[in-house]
Amino acid sequence: MIDTIDHGAVRELRLNRPPVNALAPELISAIMRVVDTAPQQGVRALVLSGSPGRFCGGLDVPLLLTLNRPSITALWRDFYSMMCVLATCQVPLAVAITGHAPAGGTVLSLFGDYRIVAEGDWRLGLNEVQVGLTLPPVIFSVLRRLVGAHQAERLAVSGILLGPQEALRIGLVDEIVPFDKVVDRAVEWCQGMIALPQGAMTATRQKAREDISKLFQHSFSNELEDVVDMWCDDETQAVLRSLAERLTKNRV
Amino acid sequence: MIDTIDHGAVRELRLNRPPVNALAPELISAIMRVVDTAPQQGVRALVLSGSPGRFCGGLDVPLLLTLNRPSITALWRDFYSMMCVLATCQVPLAVAITGHAPAGGTVLSLFGDYRIVAEGDWRLGLNEVQVGLTLPPVIFSVLRRLVGAHQAERLAVSGILLGPQEALRIGLVDEIVPFDKVVDRAVEWCQGMIALPQGAMTATRQKAREDISKLFQHSFSNELEDVVDMWCDDETQAVLRSLAERLTKNRV
Amino acid sequence: MIDTIDHGAVRELRLNRPPVNALAPELISAIMRVVDTAPQQGVRALVLSGSPGRFCGGLDVPLLLTLNRPSITALWRDFYSMMCVLATCQVPLAVAITGHAPAGGTVLSLFGDYRIVAEGDWRLGLNEVQVGLTLPPVIFSVLRRLVGAHQAERLAVSGILLGPQEALRIGLVDEIVPFDKVVDRAVEWCQGMIALPQGAMTATRQKAREDISKLFQHSFSNELEDVVDMWCDDETQAVLRSLAERLTKNRV
Repeated sequence: MIDTIDHGAVRELRLNRPPVNALAPELISAIMRVVDTAPQQGVRALVLSGSPGRFCGGLDVPLLLTLNRPSITALWRDFYSMMCVLATCQVPLAVAITGHAPAGGTVLSLFGDYRIVAEGDWRLGLNEVQVGLTLPPVIFSVLRRLVGAHQAERLAVSGILLGPQEALRIGLVDEIVPFDKVVDRAVEWCQGMIALPQGAMTATRQKAREDISKLFQHSFSNELEDVVDMWCDDETQAVLRSLAERLTKNRV
Repeated sequence: MIDTIDHGAVRELRLNRPPVNALAPELISAIMRVVDTAPQQGVRALVLSGSPGRFCGGLDVPLLLTLNRPSITALWRDFYSMMCVLATCQVPLAVAITGHAPAGGTVLSLFGDYRIVAEGDWRLGLNEVQVGLTLPPVIFSVLRRLVGAHQAERLAVSGILLGPQEALRIGLVDEIVPFDKVVDRAVEWCQGMIALPQGAMTATRQKAREDISKLFQHSFSNELEDVVDMWCDDETQAVLRSLAERLTKNRV
Repeated sequence: MIDTIDHGAVRELRLNRPPVNALAPELISAIMRVVDTAPQQGVRALVLSGSPGRFCGGLDVPLLLTLNRPSITALWRDFYSMMCVLATCQVPLAVAITGHAPAGGTVLSLFGDYRIVAEGDWRLGLNEVQVGLTLPPVIFSVLRRLVGAHQAERLAVSGILLGPQEALRIGLVDEIVPFDKVVDRAVEWCQGMIALPQGAMTATRQKAREDISKLFQHSFSNELEDVVDMWCDDETQAVLRSLAERLTKNRV
């Protein structure tokens, strides 16, 4: 589900779960595992990329609708663990947004040190509310850190999706590059980080990301229970089911 | 003093206190009342608008200069209560800035979910310092949440007024539209919010605005005393009197 | 080492330590002294400027490499005291960035109320990491206050230097003016501040800068020890020595 491509000491993790790299339980576990173990294998920086035109389609809603409450609870616990691994990753992480990145796709990108998006007519953003989901509080906090309190409110509450230019304007991404250069540029950014004096870079990075890692230093049991309640809520389930039907029809 | 126009479930509150919608004690009470009661009357989103060319001229200084200390104390207590009502409003609030919005006019707009300003040669900003008033601390905090610490410092300390373009650039407003479209666009924005799954939208909005509502969860008795002392201070009174004289002459 | 030029009640402090206004121990002490005493001498606003093309080259690395640990400890203690004096300065401070401002040059500018940079091919930024230094935590906090959490992370960790346009875009400076106007514009900005009602301006400014002055209200003994350890670290010393050699060759 993830292709691993080493560019020297920079490792690219390319999501590969057709057709849209939707986040199924196994993919969430896989992301957690490959990010967590990379530094121990001598990797000094990571690139997270996706398929051409499809970075990551967010949670696999049709699949998740088949799960019972214990499985949904396990899924969200893993999703929080994956976010914690990304938030506390010991090496720099560039995100190469190779295409559409709604909801969970944009969530993944929030944890990177640097976000590069390919030119194109992609949609980025946190459209959880549009599909009936309350945005989990810790995701809101990470978003606010990136784009500030007001833009975070606007994006989260309205659930709007943005193109690359608007995403750049409000700071949701850092850079736009031609479509076929997005991974190269992410690797290049990583090589720049590796070329820096490592002690100074690492200590400064740790301080600069202290706020994001602190978000994951306490227990999430209450928040997780709320998130699962929200998922199982009638309004949410109704909106998710109609979304899943649309997705299924579109694939036919 | 306020015209109420219902556009379906969106209620427009149009300030109507000629000539400049200056905030007299009665208008402050009226804003508080109509915002507070709207959700109980089935209103699902609010638009706060003003007169063509005059959104709101801020506190009615010539009138306030005729009040004694107990009345000024009551006025500021009501002003804080009004801000609390706006900060904790249970439904989305769009602000249609239809014209000039100095001082208190901009203060009103800070509490909205979304600010749309009409194209035109209007002045927006917090020019309290220019007219001798220290900006009340809680207003500074709301401003900082919207535009960040540095721009908040710059705007508050220098008391500069800005045109729509500069206001947009630094995030004091969200959007500029042609003059005769400003209310329509605010209503449309509200309709977009109403069309969202309401449980998810409302819960996400509550989380996203938790910081602004928390600002009003403690007692303001000390801050209010400081604000009243500041109002009654010699320098302040002198600057306010010369301002009131200029305003009176201009009206003749 | 500092030329003092009074423009009415506005005092310009022009760094003058050829060739690049590098921060030697004596210059750090001098900045602290002249900023600290100015308000008592009737000065109502300050301009900090530099030489044409050279605002301030940051710490004088070749000189500092000749110092032993006690002297380095004393230097950093003074540097922190100087930052505290700038952070708590009782009168408005405009920074006229007259040319290059790497590392310590940009650090000085962070404490100003307003930053004006001359048009030109200057480099600004916090390139401490590039020269092997971990950015001291309190400097990171002041940077984050100015440009937000994400840009602060990007600038601090990568240590990149920026031209005036990019510095303006991300909020590291407030304004770009023609080269020969930079000091005039800073003086004019100060005169605008002086023309405001002083009680209201000063009280509002104190509130708006409370966060920056609070950063310096606790003891820095632990942080200072870390900074000195970092300076004496092998990696740091190696990078600093190779930097000093390059600087020395370039001067010949």
